[in-house]
Amino acid sequence: VSVRAVGSEQEFLELIDAHFPSAHRTLALGRGDDCAVIRCPERICVSTDLFLEDVHFRRSYFRPEDIGYKALAVNVSDIASMGARPLGFSLGLMVPPGLDRAFFSAFFAGMAQLCAELDLPLTGGDLSSATRLGVCITIWGEAANGGMFLTRSGARPGDAIFLVGPIGLARVGLTLMEEGSPADEFPDSVAALLKPRVRVDEGLLLNSSGLASSMMDLSDGLAMDLPRLLGPLGAEIELNEDRLHPELLRFCRRRGSDPLATALLGGEDYALLGTVENEDAARLCELIPDAFVLGRVRKEPGIDGRGWAGVRSRGYDHFAGAPWTAD
Amino acid sequence: VSVRAVGSEQEFLELIDAHFPSAHRTLALGRGDDCAVIRCPERICVSTDLFLEDVHFRRSYFRPEDIGYKALAVNVSDIASMGARPLGFSLGLMVPPGLDRAFFSAFFAGMAQLCAELDLPLTGGDLSSATRLGVCITIWGEAANGGMFLTRSGARPGDAIFLVGPIGLARVGLTLMEEGSPADEFPDSVAALLKPRVRVDEGLLLNSSGLASSMMDLSDGLAMDLPRLLGPLGAEIELNEDRLHPELLRFCRRRGSDPLATALLGGEDYALLGTVENEDAARLCELIPDAFVLGRVRKEPGIDGRGWAGVRSRGYDHFAGAPWTAD
Repeated sequence: VSVRAVGSEQEFLELIDAHFPSAHRTLALGRGDDCAVIRCPERICVSTDLFLEDVHFRRSYFRPEDIGYKALAVNVSDIASMGARPLGFSLGLMVPPGLDRAFFSAFFAGMAQLCAELDLPLTGGDLSSATRLGVCITIWGEAANGGMFLTRSGARPGDAIFLVGPIGLARVGLTLMEEGSPADEFPDSVAALLKPRVRVDEGLLLNSSGLASSMMDLSDGLAMDLPRLLGPLGAEIELNEDRLHPELLRFCRRRGSDPLATALLGGEDYALLGTVENEDAARLCELIPDAFVLGRVRKEPGIDGRGWAGVRSRGYDHFAGAPWTAD
Repeated sequence: VSVRAVGSEQEFLELIDAHFPSAHRTLALGRGDDCAVIRCPERICVSTDLFLEDVHFRRSYFRPEDIGYKALAVNVSDIASMGARPLGFSLGLMVPPGLDRAFFSAFFAGMAQLCAELDLPLTGGDLSSATRLGVCITIWGEAANGGMFLTRSGARPGDAIFLVGPIGLARVGLTLMEEGSPADEFPDSVAALLKPRVRVDEGLLLNSSGLASSMMDLSDGLAMDLPRLLGPLGAEIELNEDRLHPELLRFCRRRGSDPLATALLGGEDYALLGTVENEDAARLCELIPDAFVLGRVRKEPGIDGRGWAGVRSRGYDHFAGAPWTAD
């Protein structure tokens, strides 16, 4: 089969212009100069995430539109977790041999879909040939009204710990896809892996309501990320299986594995994890219907709760499993 | 030889903290949360550049400190070309197998040297394993006093075209290094390739003085970049060999190649190229001792001048030569 490759940087830029508007109310100068010029509020939050082939995704089961979508979604999630609204992003795109125009058209279409949902401009970036497909996105955002951002460091003893979004589901999807197992009965798990939902609206509500005292997004699994939120503090967790997604329960039942451990280890959940004063917890759960309380912060370090003994300090780490970490 | 690899993401973050201060006057929240929070002027300019092994550099002749330095320098150059001052940057770092702590300590030291010179904070970023070493930096900056940025699009017929910095020198360095030829007699050429000078002060002066009518940085060579600056306009160029660096002249003499063509093709010069009203050109050259006038903008399209017939629409393009562009 003869594929028509994207022929030049110029052709690439035309493809980008076809998918992403070049003007936006936040842009004083759009793509095409040495820099873009952005109209800024007094404070912005900024995050950078890599999304690399055979580390964060595989071309064998990610469609090109999924790769484009998820590369941006994981970045948007960092903005959402600050209780902020994304304002713009720039794109470093690494292009391997052999991918044709149809591939990149779909890739950009997937990314542009999320941009349209969020009214988010692509301000520019860089293109390079590379051995594997890779994306590096830097994204910035503005705080909900008032200009404050939600950070990881506001948890206090006695606070309730809340979660917005399912956990462990993307891990189920990843296991199925890596095995090449049939996944017809696990559509939500596969979607959680390939096209994670971003929770910008929920993050903004949690911030502007003044209810959340701390927040982060779950990317490495609750077992790794909850200690990051707690810092020197500890927690008592009461998480029961009736809180877990039916697909995760079905998956674990069939394989004889522990649903709670699978959920706690998780990875790439992109759920919002945060804390709230205990007396405000019910109000928070009314405001965000997907939110639920999974435990309480305590002064004494460590995390206690069903399933935690087995997962302590484990989790999902793209980096630790890499070959270069061996001597 | 047994090398000690950098063992975990945590170790990496400690290495970064050892080289880059975590507090800075422009940072409301530094590294370690989902996002950094930045204090912004009303407008910032933003740019992203990739710096990838075997595309933009080779480990065989770039020392680790050169890689760290240049990865940031090429980004700073984009800010300088807007007449702006860099305010901060974020780092996507792709880490291949087999590089040890000493390598990354030197890599970060090279990058941190430029940060110290420019009082520039590293606000955060992302780490990932990868097949090859790669850097993706996003950098932002503020305009010189007044809040205006210098763009590519201000050239008018009759304007003088100026250049700040030598051209073609990095190309000489690249040729020597790629051949493995002795380079003792070409120290400036090798330095231009490995450790390009950034021209932030000159860019700020050119902007705040109000003299320059347009500006960009030369990354792909004058033959490719001057048409980008001119847009629909043309130019008459009077560039003579006495304007070229002695090392470039020596290199071309020995090889029987044309010094003017070598200089015009150039690549990775990171010189500032811009335009100025003709009557202000002398004042600009007084203000910036390295600046010189190389021609005049004209209404009629196309570029005329010694050497231009041979280089028209050629230049240095990391992308066009990539294997993926072939069918």
